[in-house]
Amino acid sequence: MKLWWERDDLCYDDNNELIFANKNIQQFAQQVGTPLFVHSAARILANINRVEQALQSTGLASRVFYALKANRYAPLLTFIKTATDCGIDACAPAEVIHALSCGFVPSDISYTGTSVSNADLDFLTGLDDLKLNCDGLSMIRRVGERAPGREIGLRINPAMGTGYGSNELLRYSGEKPTKFGIYASELDEAIELAAQYDLAITRIHFHTGCGYLNDQLDSWEEILKTSLAMIRKIPTVSALNLGGGLGVPLTSDDSELDLDQWAGVIERVFGSSGYEIHVEPGTYIAKDAGLLVLEANTVETKSGKLFVGVNSGFNLTMEPVHYQLPAEPVMCRLPDSPEKIFAAENMQPTTFVGNINEALDVMYDDLPFPSIEEGSLLVFINSGAYTTSMGSNHCMRGEYSECLLLDGVDLRK
Amino acid sequence: MKLWWERDDLCYDDNNELIFANKNIQQFAQQVGTPLFVHSAARILANINRVEQALQSTGLASRVFYALKANRYAPLLTFIKTATDCGIDACAPAEVIHALSCGFVPSDISYTGTSVSNADLDFLTGLDDLKLNCDGLSMIRRVGERAPGREIGLRINPAMGTGYGSNELLRYSGEKPTKFGIYASELDEAIELAAQYDLAITRIHFHTGCGYLNDQLDSWEEILKTSLAMIRKIPTVSALNLGGGLGVPLTSDDSELDLDQWAGVIERVFGSSGYEIHVEPGTYIAKDAGLLVLEANTVETKSGKLFVGVNSGFNLTMEPVHYQLPAEPVMCRLPDSPEKIFAAENMQPTTFVGNINEALDVMYDDLPFPSIEEGSLLVFINSGAYTTSMGSNHCMRGEYSECLLLDGVDLRK
Ligand SMILES: Cc1ncc(COP(=O)(O)O)c(C=O)c1O
Ligand SMILES: Cc1ncc(COP(=O)(O)O)c(C=O)c1O
Repeated sequence: MKLWWERDDLCYDDNNELIFANKNIQQFAQQVGTPLFVHSAARILANINRVEQALQSTGLASRVFYALKANRYAPLLTFIKTATDCGIDACAPAEVIHALSCGFVPSDISYTGTSVSNADLDFLTGLDDLKLNCDGLSMIRRVGERAPGREIGLRINPAMGTGYGSNELLRYSGEKPTKFGIYASELDEAIELAAQYDLAITRIHFHTGCGYLNDQLDSWEEILKTSLAMIRKIPTVSALNLGGGLGVPLTSDDSELDLDQWAGVIERVFGSSGYEIHVEPGTYIAKDAGLLVLEANTVETKSGKLFVGVNSGFNLTMEPVHYQLPAEPVMCRLPDSPEKIFAAENMQPTTFVGNINEALDVMYDDLPFPSIEEGSLLVFINSGAYTTSMGSNHCMRGEYSECLLLDGVDLRK
Repeated sequence: MKLWWERDDLCYDDNNELIFANKNIQQFAQQVGTPLFVHSAARILANINRVEQALQSTGLASRVFYALKANRYAPLLTFIKTATDCGIDACAPAEVIHALSCGFVPSDISYTGTSVSNADLDFLTGLDDLKLNCDGLSMIRRVGERAPGREIGLRINPAMGTGYGSNELLRYSGEKPTKFGIYASELDEAIELAAQYDLAITRIHFHTGCGYLNDQLDSWEEILKTSLAMIRKIPTVSALNLGGGLGVPLTSDDSELDLDQWAGVIERVFGSSGYEIHVEPGTYIAKDAGLLVLEANTVETKSGKLFVGVNSGFNLTMEPVHYQLPAEPVMCRLPDSPEKIFAAENMQPTTFVGNINEALDVMYDDLPFPSIEEGSLLVFINSGAYTTSMGSNHCMRGEYSECLLLDGVDLRK
């Protein structure tokens, strides 16, 4: 019996204990304590390699830039720099400095920010090799004032979006104007403004949503085609950054993003163009490479509803609460065989709640779940992205341990 | 000409510069830099005094416990301890330790948490004078195991809620069962369980929503009446904690909570009971006593919509984004007379956005606003609660300065 999320490096062993990156998570969490985040270097590596290989199949030159806003855990960044050719997508000066402090160099870094201040620009324009993308007219002008003659990229906004399950909260472009990028209506002005300061526009960037899977590939293809009309207006462009947004399955209803199909879209739209292709995924690289281990400290029925309370809350797991993105809890150790544990008569709707004093603090509402005992450990899968990186100390519940598991990785061979 | 939010300690002076707690905010922010939070000690004191006086008018003994989850800035806590008889509402061991470290003693502290772990309870039951409230059966049992014979409070859930503008996101109780407190259906079992461990139930606690104003006082009165039936089942009770939730006006449409009416509700329902009344507001004490000063670094029309970009984002101001609670920006300095600045022909719908790379990062959508220049300072009023305390370093945009303004407070007289 195999659960939907089990895979070679994340599954129950013969003793029904969860193994992740060759590590027994129950034992490890008992040693280290909870809340505990564990990240698998091997899985990160496999995720990057899979994207790189798909891009290579397009026949176009390419590079992956990991969006560190997803997870900036320093050991993980240094591992990526050491083990791969992957660069970094940064969106704030402090992110650039952090990437440099973990071993990256300016030419590894693509910068795409928003509401950028003059203080930010003083710093950013000081790094000559940084791939600096301009998010609007104001930024072009202010970059021009500081660094006339520089090469820049333009973030454009094709006014179309896509995302996980067509989730409106995750769209970065769409019918309603957003703060991001340069719309077609302002593109001519942007090109003129760049020319005025002798800025060479060598890259076009767009990022249009988060978490897209196979069902969204058609609309993603439409976005790429629409962008092409804008791109063609600028003959100096040599590279396209297609953003991030590649999703991973979050429930048993989702299936894996088919990277061959995804690369096929890129090849169909840009294959003959000769552009170098950049992508900057965060989720796809880090999300399914991280787990959050928590203790179920309270199991109690209130007014007919079964609640399981855990020792952390939405201060560390924002996505389920604020984006309605599922974060599924699984048992760290099955107290019996899977057949018995998951037998229909042992399952009941269970609501997982955190220890933050807010009504919103619900991690999963009414998930069919086996009965569980107070004190047992739970693992929230898909916790490698947008957890700690946007975590807070709300209610002073912000403490946790974090660990990069290097098991199964040997670069010295 | 007076704007809706202006008051004696927060208004434009004759030079059209914003004065808060006797301080020229434009000048101060230019010296210190932005993002900058400023909190007024005098306003905090006035807010606490107003609640204390209203409670005294009920004729019942009473005490205010400030909910530090709203704002735990250490200088502010020490000021409250020094200047008032106010206690602290804490919801995590780390909050208790923080309160102690700022000068409070255990008998000042009321503890009402959720999903409380055994490790939490080992700590909490070690503090004999802490006013420990139990949130459910599991917690009663585990407190009883550790500290038989102790006195405790019970958090009950009257299954009714209220909040700002009937905002569903802010309800802590209501028709759908939440994780909070003990429902009527479990109350007998709770009383039995407490008796089993010789725990004396001396307090009843409930907190049923956030941000209520005058329009919600009728439903709040219903909640109090409903709770009375549950309270009467426990003859050992001597104090009632009515929670927090008192709101402040957030837009020009709101009017101030009438504390006489509010105290009238308490007196009508509990006046003859002889119970001591506790309340634990966070918002009401800290929210309108704090400002966030930001720089408008980007002013740009995109696809017909006017955006003003600022040098911070929803990592520091969660409430507008995640709770749909308005946080209104105002100009730090009016470049001309109010009559000219706010003349109809100078106003246009303006969307205020932050520097976080997320589509959600919109602080105010389409607010009618005077035209403003890049580089000018903006002040977000009502930023004293649930900003820094739940702030994150998302996109590494988490840096800010913070300052307690003591101007106008003299305790030595
Ligand atoms: C410009 C940009 N690039 C890349 C990403 C990474 O997105 P994802 O984690 O969905 O791949 C984001 C996410 O916010 C973004 O704003
Ligand atoms: C138990 C409890 N008491 C008091 C408060 C403070 O609420 P407010 O800031 O709305 O007064 C909260 C807020 O979450 C709470 O959960």
